[in-house]
Amino acid sequence: MNFTDFFANRSSVRAFSDKEISAETLEKLISASSHAPNTGNMQLYSVIATLDPEKKKQVAALHFNQPAALGCSILLTFCTDTRRFEKWCEQGKTESSLNNFGGFFMSMMDACLFAQQFVTLAELEGLGTCFLGTVAYDVKGFSKLLGLPQGVVPLVGLAVGYPASPAKPSDRLPIEAILHYETFSDYTPEDIERFYAEKEALPENPKFISENNKETLAQVYAQVRYPKHLNEKIETDYADILGFKTKK
Amino acid sequence: MNFTDFFANRSSVRAFSDKEISAETLEKLISASSHAPNTGNMQLYSVIATLDPEKKKQVAALHFNQPAALGCSILLTFCTDTRRFEKWCEQGKTESSLNNFGGFFMSMMDACLFAQQFVTLAELEGLGTCFLGTVAYDVKGFSKLLGLPQGVVPLVGLAVGYPASPAKPSDRLPIEAILHYETFSDYTPEDIERFYAEKEALPENPKFISENNKETLAQVYAQVRYPKHLNEKIETDYADILGFKTKK
Repeated sequence: MNFTDFFANRSSVRAFSDKEISAETLEKLISASSHAPNTGNMQLYSVIATLDPEKKKQVAALHFNQPAALGCSILLTFCTDTRRFEKWCEQGKTESSLNNFGGFFMSMMDACLFAQQFVTLAELEGLGTCFLGTVAYDVKGFSKLLGLPQGVVPLVGLAVGYPASPAKPSDRLPIEAILHYETFSDYTPEDIERFYAEKEALPENPKFISENNKETLAQVYAQVRYPKHLNEKIETDYADILGFKTKK
Repeated sequence: MNFTDFFANRSSVRAFSDKEISAETLEKLISASSHAPNTGNMQLYSVIATLDPEKKKQVAALHFNQPAALGCSILLTFCTDTRRFEKWCEQGKTESSLNNFGGFFMSMMDACLFAQQFVTLAELEGLGTCFLGTVAYDVKGFSKLLGLPQGVVPLVGLAVGYPASPAKPSDRLPIEAILHYETFSDYTPEDIERFYAEKEALPENPKFISENNKETLAQVYAQVRYPKHLNEKIETDYADILGFKTKK
């Protein structure tokens, strides 16, 4: 098997077959994924697995009932978890040093590396996955529904299941857009034009622009798909949970 | 090949042979890794590759001259990058919506998923890697040395090379510590004791405790390895770069 080819042709899967994932398979994948690198081997993360059909409907509703969330076999929610470390510190006669943005930073990294290792192992097992960034739009709703206490913060969802059809790889920026040798080479207007040319030429995008009554694809991204007010709500919600102040 | 066994027995590599990684191999791995999942296919990351021996000494110095940083073939620095998107927005007649914590949150996730996909592909290629969390202790120093402009924030380093010897897997928490079904099951004192029993019983740890004149392993972690004042510096430094206010 040529791994670079395999992973260069992967893609997220949003439509799943009815086949269920066994608890044994889930646990085998979670257990192996926990060997992903992490900060000082503290493993500052937890994952909540939603299997119960009723609960899945509730979690999927917070994900705006996206088809991937409704149709998957298992819905996972990856969380930062500095609580376990804090409890260990309490029992070990010391105060936790991670109840701050630095701790969140480390735990966010740990949780993401773990999540991506899970995605990779799931794909090698023939499963498909789709990250659901919608968690960030209702941090408090997810925390409440999943019973997350202080020190456990939801980051991202993952729909997991057997793919209904083979993955169709999506476009990526050319390597020169993301890889810089020695020092950062800043982007000229010509660079930007070249980097985004393939994406802008994709047949679905002119349709996407006109449906949204915009002039450019960047406007669709910045004004419709990822508008400022939603990103500012992410800031406010995480600030409330994490204790830092926002500029406003 | 049994992938779950392979990745359950992986570990970070801190000692490398003299064999160099070719630019062709690096680019093949970066290119395939860019197919990792990311937010809305915006790929909000960049990676700086340090190959030049003189430059490597300078970057390694910021990593406190850790042997992995000094001895590796290539030093990578993974960064969030909302600048490319911002420039695209400018040219596309709109303001970027990602110049806030929400944008940083998304780009941090993108960068970590990309970095972990790189680690996985490198390991499948026979390479070894070691994440270097030391970037967070001198965000401004790394930014300056690597020439990072506004909108590009260094997150984590990665030492990459051919391993000097086979990896020796390290301990992990039992799966019940990290996987919660349906809702979060909070940790009882007995849970904490059970979860950390294997780690605390490792032969190196009593030595580690006595060398540091501490009573417990948790004290070594919270007071020596990851002390509060360093984590609070992370908060202050990222707050300066990202524009949010800290509590202090």
